[in-house]
Amino acid sequence: MEYATQMDAAKRGIITPEMKKVAEKERRTPEEIRAFVASGEVVIPANKAHTCLDPNGIGSMLRTKINVNLGVSRDCRDYDVEMKKVQSAVDLGAEAIMDLSSHGNTQPFRRKLCRECPAMVGTVPVYDAVIHYQRDLGTLTAKDFIDVVRLHAEDGVDFVTLHCGINRKTIEEIKAGRRKMNIVSRGGSLVFAWMSMTGNENPFYEYFDEILDICREYDVTISLGDACRPGCLADATDSCQIGELLRLGELVQRARDRDVQVMVEGPGHVPMDQIAANMKLEQTICKGAPFYVLGPLVTDIAPGYDHITAAIGGAIAAMSGAAFLCYVTPAEHLALPDVDDVREGIIASRIAAHAADIAKGVPGAREQDDRMAAARQKLDWDAQWKEALDPETAKKIRASRAPEEEGTCSMCGKFCAVRSMNKALAGEMIDIL
Amino acid sequence: MEYATQMDAAKRGIITPEMKKVAEKERRTPEEIRAFVASGEVVIPANKAHTCLDPNGIGSMLRTKINVNLGVSRDCRDYDVEMKKVQSAVDLGAEAIMDLSSHGNTQPFRRKLCRECPAMVGTVPVYDAVIHYQRDLGTLTAKDFIDVVRLHAEDGVDFVTLHCGINRKTIEEIKAGRRKMNIVSRGGSLVFAWMSMTGNENPFYEYFDEILDICREYDVTISLGDACRPGCLADATDSCQIGELLRLGELVQRARDRDVQVMVEGPGHVPMDQIAANMKLEQTICKGAPFYVLGPLVTDIAPGYDHITAAIGGAIAAMSGAAFLCYVTPAEHLALPDVDDVREGIIASRIAAHAADIAKGVPGAREQDDRMAAARQKLDWDAQWKEALDPETAKKIRASRAPEEEGTCSMCGKFCAVRSMNKALAGEMIDIL
Repeated sequence: MEYATQMDAAKRGIITPEMKKVAEKERRTPEEIRAFVASGEVVIPANKAHTCLDPNGIGSMLRTKINVNLGVSRDCRDYDVEMKKVQSAVDLGAEAIMDLSSHGNTQPFRRKLCRECPAMVGTVPVYDAVIHYQRDLGTLTAKDFIDVVRLHAEDGVDFVTLHCGINRKTIEEIKAGRRKMNIVSRGGSLVFAWMSMTGNENPFYEYFDEILDICREYDVTISLGDACRPGCLADATDSCQIGELLRLGELVQRARDRDVQVMVEGPGHVPMDQIAANMKLEQTICKGAPFYVLGPLVTDIAPGYDHITAAIGGAIAAMSGAAFLCYVTPAEHLALPDVDDVREGIIASRIAAHAADIAKGVPGAREQDDRMAAARQKLDWDAQWKEALDPETAKKIRASRAPEEEGTCSMCGKFCAVRSMNKALAGEMIDIL
Repeated sequence: MEYATQMDAAKRGIITPEMKKVAEKERRTPEEIRAFVASGEVVIPANKAHTCLDPNGIGSMLRTKINVNLGVSRDCRDYDVEMKKVQSAVDLGAEAIMDLSSHGNTQPFRRKLCRECPAMVGTVPVYDAVIHYQRDLGTLTAKDFIDVVRLHAEDGVDFVTLHCGINRKTIEEIKAGRRKMNIVSRGGSLVFAWMSMTGNENPFYEYFDEILDICREYDVTISLGDACRPGCLADATDSCQIGELLRLGELVQRARDRDVQVMVEGPGHVPMDQIAANMKLEQTICKGAPFYVLGPLVTDIAPGYDHITAAIGGAIAAMSGAAFLCYVTPAEHLALPDVDDVREGIIASRIAAHAADIAKGVPGAREQDDRMAAARQKLDWDAQWKEALDPETAKKIRASRAPEEEGTCSMCGKFCAVRSMNKALAGEMIDIL
């Protein structure tokens, strides 16, 4: 059957192959998934040109998905290293890869990704615009930006981050010194700078209809970027952030009216007690559009450990309504992540996503935990490795400090509570000495 | 002035030197702290014999405190390595050290700790009983256990974990197969085994009055252990756990009646959505006694990363009423932690505690974050290192991948949003190429 986008199909009652696959993965009926896609509460980013895609749905009632940022930059130009990171990210369970390449000719890497990567691929066209034209930011025209969006759509990108919500009013608020950290979104800062230099309105807002035409043609999902996401706790949930969210809510409706799938990006640095309110606000203002959050980081003082500050915030966010977590690595705020950082960041995000899925009762979420508990009760280490998120790391730790007592680990040795209990319940003597 | 314990003094209107120090640290008046100690909502574990102690208060309205478990075991017999871990733990901000030594003659290390360590010192006498007497567990008498409690009190220990809440009814419930993981508390499993072997009632429950006499004499704070803390998500908040909590609530009152300071230990493995309820339950049942939690771990499937699963649960717990977090290291469930694991565990706990303190509005909690934000806005790296929880690790990451552009880091390079914004706001051109 012919249809323009997943959303167009869903609205017309058509169940697409992608919806079927998503339904299987999520233990839902295809009809449930179709209804969610029709309402916009679930998106299935799936560019028609990305033929090797293994599709996933993103929505607050589905399993929480995670995204990994990668890409070639001036400080890391090696394509092979980046492709290795992509492979490792997919192996570790990332459902999305954002290509944030910002150096050289970016198209070959982007095309390679869309040819080979089964995870959904996202980009931020405004970064690429600067590189693509090799001209100073201030000389670019609105049309230049839109042309790059089209280029990415043609290359097979499944979703694009567009910072449509920042406008001339935001510029005034920022210039008036309302915020401690101003704008910390890379794309947002470029749009801000371009608007400041040219005096023009935000091109992604002004030409939103043209963008919708492109996205409708290729079924590119729009990820409405939050230029004003707070860069520190002090800026969280302020008028800049919420003002932008209100504008994004309007754009959600315009996208849906054209059957273009749309999600919304969110904070950022947010104190724990404000996270649930932020999630609820996005769900009401943006009428259930899937919320894609970067963090939230729950403190500003832990550089080197921001995968942990983000895991805390991400878990609470996902439990409270966020559908999609952007990973954060230990190198956040400090350096481009290396292969180890990428792994640490992915595992931390997966822990956050999984813990939230258990908390919100996603079908089947706790089964792996129950199998792990059974393995632990039997002190069956092989079974434990099978259920572990990262078996290699776990095995390495246990092997590095061999226990005195076969079956236990060196943490408790013969004091192992499981061992003691198993003996006590079997009526055996407890031999600790 | 003469008084038996901090609580005795507080009830009689006396402000002790320890209360004064705690008040200064917490930005409270001495009178506020006295009132909290009198009601039992704050404890100041401070054995009269621990003269080098830098006292801290533990209570849900105060800064969240963290504990580090250490000690000599058969698999790690080196005193010097353990003392190095103690020093590193104190330097990294741990307020308490629990000595869980379980090998050889444990007294010298325990005494050394109480002579040299400014952090409060806790122990679990039931572990030590097995080692101390060098006899099989089943041959020990109730009096033997109580004598070890006295020994620890004399040595200067500030708080002792006693598993008083498990009784013969618990044994029946466990034997009936009510739980997936039975008992995972080391101390709890020893008490269970002893009760199973001897047919006697729990000695720490039966002789609780004798224990109170000892604790009153030295001002040892009782930490009521949770033998039935859940060892997997499936066992969380079940009748074993809550039944024990009800008995602990009764013992809290008996301790307070004798002016003995008391806190309560809590879970364990708990799904995120059950954490707040667990905290509220402890606060009502145990009448505001400070809650000391191990974790909670929010998933069972992340061995090698349980410092992260515990940071998520600990942050939520502390925001919801827990006062004291026991650290969890990456080696949890796998091996005895090495020096690196100890550091990772402490930092993860401190992140959780700090994030919670911000969320619950502990006076001054966010000031360091605000200074970090100011440093970041200026791209002032020296100032950032000053505010970082672990500056050495952060510096190392940035230095390992030097950025193209002085002032930025290699994560964004010239795309750095802060750099772009600072230039844009100064009316300068943005030079990204």
